[in-house]
Amino acid sequence: MYALALHGGAGPRPAGWSGAREQRVRDALARALEVGRALLSDGGSALDAVTATVAALEDDPLFNAGRGAVRTRAGTVELDAAVMDGAALAAGAVAVLRRAKNPVKVARAVLERTAHVLLAGDGADAFAAEVGAELVPQSYFLSSAAPSSDDEAAHGTVGAVALDRHGHLAAATSTGGMSGQRPGRIGDSPLIGCGTYADEQCAISTTGHGEWFIRTVQAYDIAARMRYAHVSLTVAVESAVMQRLPTLGAAGGLIAVDRAGTLCMRFNTAQMYRACVREGNEPEIAITA
Amino acid sequence: MYALALHGGAGPRPAGWSGAREQRVRDALARALEVGRALLSDGGSALDAVTATVAALEDDPLFNAGRGAVRTRAGTVELDAAVMDGAALAAGAVAVLRRAKNPVKVARAVLERTAHVLLAGDGADAFAAEVGAELVPQSYFLSSAAPSSDDEAAHGTVGAVALDRHGHLAAATSTGGMSGQRPGRIGDSPLIGCGTYADEQCAISTTGHGEWFIRTVQAYDIAARMRYAHVSLTVAVESAVMQRLPTLGAAGGLIAVDRAGTLCMRFNTAQMYRACVREGNEPEIAITA
Repeated sequence: MYALALHGGAGPRPAGWSGAREQRVRDALARALEVGRALLSDGGSALDAVTATVAALEDDPLFNAGRGAVRTRAGTVELDAAVMDGAALAAGAVAVLRRAKNPVKVARAVLERTAHVLLAGDGADAFAAEVGAELVPQSYFLSSAAPSSDDEAAHGTVGAVALDRHGHLAAATSTGGMSGQRPGRIGDSPLIGCGTYADEQCAISTTGHGEWFIRTVQAYDIAARMRYAHVSLTVAVESAVMQRLPTLGAAGGLIAVDRAGTLCMRFNTAQMYRACVREGNEPEIAITA
Repeated sequence: MYALALHGGAGPRPAGWSGAREQRVRDALARALEVGRALLSDGGSALDAVTATVAALEDDPLFNAGRGAVRTRAGTVELDAAVMDGAALAAGAVAVLRRAKNPVKVARAVLERTAHVLLAGDGADAFAAEVGAELVPQSYFLSSAAPSSDDEAAHGTVGAVALDRHGHLAAATSTGGMSGQRPGRIGDSPLIGCGTYADEQCAISTTGHGEWFIRTVQAYDIAARMRYAHVSLTVAVESAVMQRLPTLGAAGGLIAVDRAGTLCMRFNTAQMYRACVREGNEPEIAITA
């Protein structure tokens, strides 16, 4: 049995929303889902599936990650990503990356080729070059069709979670940050336990108000509810996303999967771009609640 | 009632250890403890106490934070710090800072003056300059008496946790990273939920093998055990530090305090530089188990 979910960000309905735009987003979500699904169907690992799914979303200018990344207040693009392999409790992440085409692939290289978890800034770019990651000029991002308004930008962070046929779980998240953010700001996406987490019982990727998801250590909070309160993934996600976060004024959502292949895609915003598939079932693509 | 604990790092006994060195470390720990204790005794906040205590440790070349920071493989000094206010669930952190004399004060400024939690690299240095933080050349660090061998460096990360008379908790951590680390590497210290965490029930600061403390989301794991398994701080710390972490091969320790003023200072290494005080009691200073 395999299961896969992805998100393309949560937030309010963007200004200028249209049926044509909705179709473009749905098509993009379906294409990225199929990339990961095909790998899982062939017996590939959850880690490979989330990496490839997120890389596909990074290549699409519709999302605020990789190519479609928004700009900082300095007009630059800074990219963050993380990946975690639940079976090995191994993680890799990058932040404030400026030259890598696919930040999630560089995060994966941090996991596989270093003794570290998180590399940031110039050191992360130097590492990307060292491991042969595909580098692009800032104009690759700046010339894309990235949305420039804040509310559209809020929909952009991307992520994926997967269970593979070997019973292993993995999660990955990638973002271009907040439109107009201070250079050097790191949100929750690349932070293990906050925006991305996976262990032997669940895998989580979040999207939304990153600073709140850091303060609530949101991704690991889901795992901890399961581990210590002995509740199901569904109950853990419901309590966190629909009860605790709104109490704090924290807007956003998350996707999660457990080792039985249970999929959760919950959000307390108007919409969350999302898609999921379980072996033997048709893919689901959805945007609004 | 107030309570305060601090650490100056956990690890193996350094090479060349001597009675004279032990006395210098004990004196330094006692001085830093008194800085925070005096503030708490005057009714000051836990947030002020942990900030001032960690700043005092940063100014002492005996510890791998601030002045005594170790060097990366590029020969540079990169500084990380975080502070969290448990009552407000507010946090500020900086990473890969190169010019600020007291990283913990810059982390405090991130908490108080921005909508963000974590700033890294050039953007963090620019922010430090913008808020008037004291800046120093890299030679301030490089000219210090910082230890250069790996095992001494392992003893350096500093941190503090406090309960103030208003019943509020706070935690702060600061580090110069790992000796010889890749430039841009960020360990657990500045990561909320990993090396530093505080909420209404407990405050935690860790020290040790940073990458493992990221993978286990160690600081928040203690809070989650209390919140969801309903165990005491002492039981939560014992289970995590003395049972789970050794199983993973993760060496280190942590300090913690709960809202009743219970203090924990546990480590699975040969020693952890540490000190604590509760209102009405004599300070305790200790190094070995």
